[in-house]
Amino acid sequence: MKFATIQLDGRRAVAVIDPDKERVWPLESLLGEPVDDLLDVIHRYDEIKGRINVEGEGIGLSRVRLEAPIPRPARNIFCVGKNYHDHAREFAGSGYDSSATGAADAVPALPIFFTKVPESVIGPDEAILYPRGISEQIDYEVELALVIGKGGKNIAPEDAYRHVWGYTVINDVTARDVQKRHKQWLLGKSFDTFCPMGPWVVTADELDPTDLQVKTWVNGELRQNASTRDLIFDIPTLVATASAGITLYPGDIIATGTPAGVGLGFSPPKFLFPGDRVTVEVSGIGALSNTLA
Amino acid sequence: MKFATIQLDGRRAVAVIDPDKERVWPLESLLGEPVDDLLDVIHRYDEIKGRINVEGEGIGLSRVRLEAPIPRPARNIFCVGKNYHDHAREFAGSGYDSSATGAADAVPALPIFFTKVPESVIGPDEAILYPRGISEQIDYEVELALVIGKGGKNIAPEDAYRHVWGYTVINDVTARDVQKRHKQWLLGKSFDTFCPMGPWVVTADELDPTDLQVKTWVNGELRQNASTRDLIFDIPTLVATASAGITLYPGDIIATGTPAGVGLGFSPPKFLFPGDRVTVEVSGIGALSNTLA
Repeated sequence: MKFATIQLDGRRAVAVIDPDKERVWPLESLLGEPVDDLLDVIHRYDEIKGRINVEGEGIGLSRVRLEAPIPRPARNIFCVGKNYHDHAREFAGSGYDSSATGAADAVPALPIFFTKVPESVIGPDEAILYPRGISEQIDYEVELALVIGKGGKNIAPEDAYRHVWGYTVINDVTARDVQKRHKQWLLGKSFDTFCPMGPWVVTADELDPTDLQVKTWVNGELRQNASTRDLIFDIPTLVATASAGITLYPGDIIATGTPAGVGLGFSPPKFLFPGDRVTVEVSGIGALSNTLA
Repeated sequence: MKFATIQLDGRRAVAVIDPDKERVWPLESLLGEPVDDLLDVIHRYDEIKGRINVEGEGIGLSRVRLEAPIPRPARNIFCVGKNYHDHAREFAGSGYDSSATGAADAVPALPIFFTKVPESVIGPDEAILYPRGISEQIDYEVELALVIGKGGKNIAPEDAYRHVWGYTVINDVTARDVQKRHKQWLLGKSFDTFCPMGPWVVTADELDPTDLQVKTWVNGELRQNASTRDLIFDIPTLVATASAGITLYPGDIIATGTPAGVGLGFSPPKFLFPGDRVTVEVSGIGALSNTLA
């Protein structure tokens, strides 16, 4: 099933979405009971999923506005750095990588986790604010992101998928100069509007995440194009690593890293500027586009 | 004024506290109206502060249990790494510092920001859980932490103090091996119970933060002892840096870094083990102690 967070008649609501038919069905109508937000759905999913029967015409997708599926995560988003082989080499070779000193440690031995603040999240077609006077090296990073369903701590890799409720797409927008200058990556990753997310969440039962195509276009030009087969650390390893000593909670988001083809990797670099339109896509989920303003 | 979050008769409440008299006054009683939590107080402080008249006997401190003043921050805690000269050299020389390659860049040119997850927060006298099987290099870090009152973005250094509502003490407990192995510091800083906070918040009008003594004792042995005069980056610089492109919100917490004397800095290192009791103190605020379990 695919769940979206929508604006309909001035109100935020969770809806089941059929992207092919371009229809949405507000979940409150389907269930006949209040639904707070997607986190509420995640908490009650085992109980309600058998009662979600998509019937009737629904509402045309053109009549609603899609928001980020989780517009304001309950804590910072967990992100993984350098998790595709080609990108790890591309980044380490750029001179911007404070986590590696050369080719020898370009590919990390263990997952590198950092965070983006929750308020950096925006939805499809919302503007990415160009941080004038602060950075002129704005970059894109398409990422498959997973949404935790069942919380837990010290989760074994073989149990990890039981804790994944669904998948969505994130654009881990990054100010490269700020990322480099401050050594730890939080600031360069957390500017307001720097986390486009969407267009919806696909529940884990409908998607095999191990061979999805992740792509970015800038103004129509394909820049990133890789398969999640090339992940250095797979999803079970990421969930096990993040939860070692740290309790994960329902609604936590883990972005799994980006492949080669970021702006920084070109010579000269191809950074983003006001007016540029960035589209990120993960096959089996969908695409979202945002313009820099 | 000093504000604590207390457990009284099985209920959580915000109280004005007088540590010298060892008395607390629940704020709801003083105001005659509901008070949700400290964040509610921060939001309404300009309106309510003139009406907080501490009268009567109050309640003996021994009758209540102190919690962390903000038991569950609304997003990850902003933390600053290597912000005292002596500690920056101590850490860079330890071989554990993924942000520096040698003595030349031991002292950072710009503030290094990372985060701890909100759920790592515990209060005075709560147990720090020793992460058995995950790390055997647990360390303490006393830090002056500031609590944001008025939110804002791109805050100028000269305006920074207008955005600081108060000050508290944080023990930025750290798993050194995990911090080192994963390059970015989130994981090694975010284990459950790894952020003792308290014992209360002192409002900014009552405290000059520029020359406070910050200290740590382990089992009664003084380990850290420095003044905030020695901060590499002062509070105005930290607020300006964190808010450059990133909106700060009321209740945000910024921990300002730790001085020399952490366990890692000794030869051989003096890490923490189950049964150890750690006390962190900042003069003008107070002290809190936690035992590893």
